[in-house]
Amino acid sequence: MRMKVSITLPTPPSRDYEITIDTLPKITIDGKAAIVTNPKVAGLHLHRLLAAVDAKELYIVTIPDGENYKTMEMIEFILDRLFDHRLDRKSTLIAFGGGVIGDMTGFAASIFQRGIDFIQVPTTLLSQVDASVGGKTGINNRFGKNLVGAFHQPRAVYIDTFWLKTLPEREFAAGVAEIVKMAVMFDADFFQWLESHDLHEEENLKEAIRRSVELKARVVNEDEKEKGIRAVLNYGHTFAHVIENFSGYGTYLHGEAVAAGMVMANALAIEYGLFSMEEAERVKSLLEKYGLPTEYAIEDPESFYDQFFLDKKSHDNKITFIVPKAIGVWKMLVNPEKTRIIKVLEAFKKETAVES
Amino acid sequence: MRMKVSITLPTPPSRDYEITIDTLPKITIDGKAAIVTNPKVAGLHLHRLLAAVDAKELYIVTIPDGENYKTMEMIEFILDRLFDHRLDRKSTLIAFGGGVIGDMTGFAASIFQRGIDFIQVPTTLLSQVDASVGGKTGINNRFGKNLVGAFHQPRAVYIDTFWLKTLPEREFAAGVAEIVKMAVMFDADFFQWLESHDLHEEENLKEAIRRSVELKARVVNEDEKEKGIRAVLNYGHTFAHVIENFSGYGTYLHGEAVAAGMVMANALAIEYGLFSMEEAERVKSLLEKYGLPTEYAIEDPESFYDQFFLDKKSHDNKITFIVPKAIGVWKMLVNPEKTRIIKVLEAFKKETAVES
Repeated sequence: MRMKVSITLPTPPSRDYEITIDTLPKITIDGKAAIVTNPKVAGLHLHRLLAAVDAKELYIVTIPDGENYKTMEMIEFILDRLFDHRLDRKSTLIAFGGGVIGDMTGFAASIFQRGIDFIQVPTTLLSQVDASVGGKTGINNRFGKNLVGAFHQPRAVYIDTFWLKTLPEREFAAGVAEIVKMAVMFDADFFQWLESHDLHEEENLKEAIRRSVELKARVVNEDEKEKGIRAVLNYGHTFAHVIENFSGYGTYLHGEAVAAGMVMANALAIEYGLFSMEEAERVKSLLEKYGLPTEYAIEDPESFYDQFFLDKKSHDNKITFIVPKAIGVWKMLVNPEKTRIIKVLEAFKKETAVES
Repeated sequence: MRMKVSITLPTPPSRDYEITIDTLPKITIDGKAAIVTNPKVAGLHLHRLLAAVDAKELYIVTIPDGENYKTMEMIEFILDRLFDHRLDRKSTLIAFGGGVIGDMTGFAASIFQRGIDFIQVPTTLLSQVDASVGGKTGINNRFGKNLVGAFHQPRAVYIDTFWLKTLPEREFAAGVAEIVKMAVMFDADFFQWLESHDLHEEENLKEAIRRSVELKARVVNEDEKEKGIRAVLNYGHTFAHVIENFSGYGTYLHGEAVAAGMVMANALAIEYGLFSMEEAERVKSLLEKYGLPTEYAIEDPESFYDQFFLDKKSHDNKITFIVPKAIGVWKMLVNPEKTRIIKVLEAFKKETAVES
């Protein structure tokens, strides 16, 4: 006799949340909490965060800064500290730092006792406009970036431009790269606005963050788990990941690699007759205005090409590139021919200096 | 100016699934798949599973058997093999083994590329009636059992009693303990039926699995993430976890520790005048019929007591014990007095042999 039992799961409770772009408000936590941060951010700004947080018990966990530490070992280090202090299922984590801190804190929150709440307090421009919104969490391993992780939405995101006062100019520019990405993909008006407004001015910066976050929120709301349109956010990233793999994490900031990656994606779009050289030039000029790299010297186009296929966004040796059809209009280029990709990569090939 | 952006996430797609209790059917997987199993189960039964699975590419990953290997290191080992074989976001894992294999495969599936599908093919009675249903996945660490993990529901569960033919009697009995647990908590008729039916007979066994799984499904459907009634499934477990921690994983099978734990919970219920000695005796007799331990020698009641508070189900030094009010009727005993718990534990204290 064949017996069947059906599992009909209830609709999960709403995971909706708000992103506040303002001076950090009072954060009241009903239970234990731990702030996960790095020594540098803590030294510069922890006192100001502590003045705003009210929790029953509060602990500080610092982890070393940088993409190199985005490992499972460091996740276990965070989890061990939470167990040391007997945090429980009703506790909350606060991610206080850039994208690395946000990704790791979110991932730790997603697996600590099968999932607890976390709050994002991003302190870099890049994490304010990108990493802190959308619930992607994770770590790197020897196979690549962000290959292990979870979708785990924060309970709230507090974006305060105050922290950016101490941000080095290079990191500021890296955040601008992601803002430019959103404009090129989704919003021609915003792109034009960016061409005529300096983001070093506080009010402009806030406005750019708001518009960028709104665009990202719209995409995430439509496609949380990247089955469709969320992939458009990978514009520039398919190239950027390979650049980061080759140059070693730390040589380029993520946003810098994305800037160079967008220029490459634009070149591929031009090769396919999809995008105009004039528009590509406008994108390049905007990136250069903020001192972002728009060139990258490829050593060997063939091995650069091969790296695309370990990236988790590819399967069955198929690959999709996100390119602009026009500023503000995205297109998915599915399985472009290898020869044409190589041709584009060749144009970025490192020139061998000839002694004369 | 305060700016707010709302994230309104879409309702996730249905995660409903079916549990089939029958001869293993054909399993067709539309993509790559990996079977995660242990060397012993693989040696005994893999050929039969392989005959049933049809996938585009299929890989076998074996991990060592036992609760001691339910670690983050072993999760990373599994993940590395999936990357070696370039499994992708559309791939499926198949858990083929007991509870340890199910918990680990499920957890690996939940974090591989932020979550992929998995199927449960449980091969022990314990995992068929308990671990394979409900989506709890996870690992142990030095702080305790199942402290790190995720809620990740399988795509399907296939329960076939064929595998149980090779199951040692002790492991069979450990599975019966969880069946008894479900009956004591939720279903007096089922308990009476168990008293008069031998589960060594195939048709009785199937019927008991069906009823047990149905009861568990009802609980999980009501409370997937253990905010309420699902905690009732911890009957016997609060004690069992401490027994397992003290005796070292492997001395007692999980189901054996649960059997002794239920006897302790019953004693606590009697201490509070909630449960009758007659009914407690019926539970004990049924457990003993299958050779399950109903005694455990506590070395030091105080230190046994302290261990309750590291368990993840406790927070704020509060503790809830699940006890029966009658066979088929559960009750949550919130924060019983320490003196009365100690009194109950004293009754289980190891007797010091007095030389005469």
